[in-house]
Amino acid sequence: MDKRTKILFVFIVVGLMVFGSAASAMAGKDTDNKWNGNDHKNTDNSNSNREIKNVIVMVPDGCSQSVQTLARWYSGDELQLDSMVSGMVSTYMADSIITDSASAATAFATGYKTSNGFLSVGPNSATLLNTVDESAMAEDYVPLATVLEGAKLEGKATGLVATSEIPHATPAAFASHTDSRKSYDDIIEQMVYEDVDVVFAGGEDFLYEARGDGENLIEVLEEKGYQFVVTEDEMMEVGSGKVWGMFADKAMSPENIREESTPEQPTIEEMTTKAIELLSQDKDGFFLMVEGSQVDWAGHANDPVYMVTDFLAFDEAVEAAVEFAEEDGHTLVIVFPDHNTGGMTIGKRGTSYTDLTVEELVDPLMNGESDNEIGWTTGGHTGDDVPLWSYGPNRPIGLFDNTELATYVADAFGFVLDDVSVELFVDVEKAFPGMWELDTTDTKNPVLIITYNNKVAELPVNKNVMNIDGGAEIYLNGVVVYAPKADNGNGKVFIPQDAVDALKI
Amino acid sequence: MDKRTKILFVFIVVGLMVFGSAASAMAGKDTDNKWNGNDHKNTDNSNSNREIKNVIVMVPDGCSQSVQTLARWYSGDELQLDSMVSGMVSTYMADSIITDSASAATAFATGYKTSNGFLSVGPNSATLLNTVDESAMAEDYVPLATVLEGAKLEGKATGLVATSEIPHATPAAFASHTDSRKSYDDIIEQMVYEDVDVVFAGGEDFLYEARGDGENLIEVLEEKGYQFVVTEDEMMEVGSGKVWGMFADKAMSPENIREESTPEQPTIEEMTTKAIELLSQDKDGFFLMVEGSQVDWAGHANDPVYMVTDFLAFDEAVEAAVEFAEEDGHTLVIVFPDHNTGGMTIGKRGTSYTDLTVEELVDPLMNGESDNEIGWTTGGHTGDDVPLWSYGPNRPIGLFDNTELATYVADAFGFVLDDVSVELFVDVEKAFPGMWELDTTDTKNPVLIITYNNKVAELPVNKNVMNIDGGAEIYLNGVVVYAPKADNGNGKVFIPQDAVDALKI
Repeated sequence: MDKRTKILFVFIVVGLMVFGSAASAMAGKDTDNKWNGNDHKNTDNSNSNREIKNVIVMVPDGCSQSVQTLARWYSGDELQLDSMVSGMVSTYMADSIITDSASAATAFATGYKTSNGFLSVGPNSATLLNTVDESAMAEDYVPLATVLEGAKLEGKATGLVATSEIPHATPAAFASHTDSRKSYDDIIEQMVYEDVDVVFAGGEDFLYEARGDGENLIEVLEEKGYQFVVTEDEMMEVGSGKVWGMFADKAMSPENIREESTPEQPTIEEMTTKAIELLSQDKDGFFLMVEGSQVDWAGHANDPVYMVTDFLAFDEAVEAAVEFAEEDGHTLVIVFPDHNTGGMTIGKRGTSYTDLTVEELVDPLMNGESDNEIGWTTGGHTGDDVPLWSYGPNRPIGLFDNTELATYVADAFGFVLDDVSVELFVDVEKAFPGMWELDTTDTKNPVLIITYNNKVAELPVNKNVMNIDGGAEIYLNGVVVYAPKADNGNGKVFIPQDAVDALKI
Repeated sequence: MDKRTKILFVFIVVGLMVFGSAASAMAGKDTDNKWNGNDHKNTDNSNSNREIKNVIVMVPDGCSQSVQTLARWYSGDELQLDSMVSGMVSTYMADSIITDSASAATAFATGYKTSNGFLSVGPNSATLLNTVDESAMAEDYVPLATVLEGAKLEGKATGLVATSEIPHATPAAFASHTDSRKSYDDIIEQMVYEDVDVVFAGGEDFLYEARGDGENLIEVLEEKGYQFVVTEDEMMEVGSGKVWGMFADKAMSPENIREESTPEQPTIEEMTTKAIELLSQDKDGFFLMVEGSQVDWAGHANDPVYMVTDFLAFDEAVEAAVEFAEEDGHTLVIVFPDHNTGGMTIGKRGTSYTDLTVEELVDPLMNGESDNEIGWTTGGHTGDDVPLWSYGPNRPIGLFDNTELATYVADAFGFVLDDVSVELFVDVEKAFPGMWELDTTDTKNPVLIITYNNKVAELPVNKNVMNIDGGAEIYLNGVVVYAPKADNGNGKVFIPQDAVDALKI
């Protein structure tokens, strides 16, 4: 081959390899790749002249439209989501055709594919699928800005609602950065210091009782001016301002036993309604993420009643969101699962499928019989596309990669996620080469020390505070992130640009 | 209860029962029922000023979006259908939550739910689901006009393409009327006499060799002026006019062995392209239905390679249809499965789902290994909603009941299906009370005899011909349908209105 042929050959080979992850990670960037080209999807332009002020992202974790169909038969009525069907979402992650929840949430929070268990940081490039274009992936292990963080920088109010413990994968991906979804201590600490305005979920234990680092994050929240509530009644009394509601030590109750076992817990609909009530008081608008966390857990357990009742409770939360959006006129509601769990179908091997009555389907479920007509392929996740539902001006219609949903939200709000990353995650070695160290005297609470122009700045990891020469705390735009595996295991520390500015002025 | 309270009570009870099938069967009629209210769906109005002249309905029989996702990984490329994702379709039939293919095809051909195995006739009301509003169902066993028949009355050309034998459920529902999908003799006879302009599929045996009634329908087709072809080469030579192509004695070959075992058979893409080429010569426009019949059979067999290769072949046919539609600008392409078959998922019990590589998914399939990563819940059908894909002006977006797809097509063409039924299916007892008998001397070939004003008309069942007093054959707008189980088993015979008119003039 002569040189030109060689270049052409490389171009073609690379071109052939660029499908899937490649283009997806490029979502929001200029690309004419067919897989994710704009010909795939469009927006409902019937309200295109309306500015989008608020976005509500809602995730019924771990399901497909099968549970939507089943919920319709089970409840005997149409669902709110039935009126919002608008497409499908592809879900694979950077290193597996089937995604986990952390990686999936990273995709729709940041616009980037990442590795198994990673939360809003770049992937481990050693394990990528061979179809991924590495040049389009984020740098290994580095933190990636989320749509929640971007909304916050735009001056919008932000909120997170879940029925799991709050450091669980999906909510965690919107407000923390770590390569391990299991690092609850780090995750919830970052979430507390991310200054999210409204947080409603379970997980109080991880703020203090169950911590390994001696921190009392409930006190921190109170010092930060948060109202801290633990029951539905307390939540209902909050009329304005910032609030953390922790309604269970760990996860909240499944919907089908909630009323009986924990009547003091709010429903997901109540949490959503209250969150919207509070967040919508911000004249700059808001971003809210609501997760029906346990639809997935029910799928893992192959428990159709747990699944369908949690899905129906989630559907009521969607109805509340849409009611607000209808009145408001400037709110986009986007709903999608992160992946399918369980591979559930109506009908299974042995079902007499041409004469299956409503009673034969529903009664065994209502009676809690394990001998029912529901099929499952697995206790794990599956890799098929999941449904997309939406409501509001310029709602998305078509097939989207999960990464594209993040850029869709960022576009709606008018910011670029990569720009937010530049603003929030400055490699301290680049800003202050050789002038920093990570003080790990307290191994559980490392502190970044920067010495610059005879000034010494201290920035505790996972927090959004800094002091210079032991002075008063300066509050930063984002949290300090330590990525121990970045830079080939040498580790990197990232600080917000405003910390750099404060020190260099 | 006083009378007014009673009426109110009945109204409420009936109102509560009216969900699902009820409203669905009412599709196209005035109804404010929420389940199928217009708030569920909308149309892409970006091209709403364009008149729809042609409609192409395409059915990948028996699948869900799982096969779409798998096809993408298997082929290493995006699909034509990826650009067309636009909603979901609910599929239940009149007497089961899970539908069979005949009843499903009846729904999207006629706009009415019916019973298991029925082809474009009303249901058996004794077996209806308890959620069905009986008052909204068609009369038991009576023939129901199809969108193909309506298009024909509008002067449009019509076509049917399938990879099964042509009297198989899906194509059969568009051009025949019987309470048994197994009555191949009756079905294909009606299809021949329906004067469909272009028919490409398998099933030559059912025209003559395998018949029990002594008819030679190949001769009939030739007398009717059809070109009759049996190979791809012969098909390609047809440049205009009416044509039946029967490319196999029974079903055509599965795509993954077609080239090797039956190279003379055309692909579904070739059949579709040729059908469009011929039909589009009609200045009044056309209706075409294309079925990828064997995706379903592969699902029944739990054979992922058979399923994905037939789906990919179908996707190429969709691409051909969209290419025409793009150029034409007045063509609506609507694609949807009739139901899911097999409950297939990417990943199954035992799949290591957080690190499933492309090779681990695809290689075992390529190598024909039964030990692969594909999960199945059944060898039968399942009841979950299936995806909707579409392209063209005013394309449907949202959740549709399968019955609503028929009325969507009729609306696009500007006719009302119930009006077509009035035109094509007149109860002979109503038109000529006591003046008719069914001559069953030849039990396999019954003939309707009407004696009116000293004239005797003979109308063979399943045919669109009539003679009066032994005179020349008069060709009718539609076929004569005998419904032996109608009128509580007394039987009814239906004739087109133009037969009534011809006799009464």
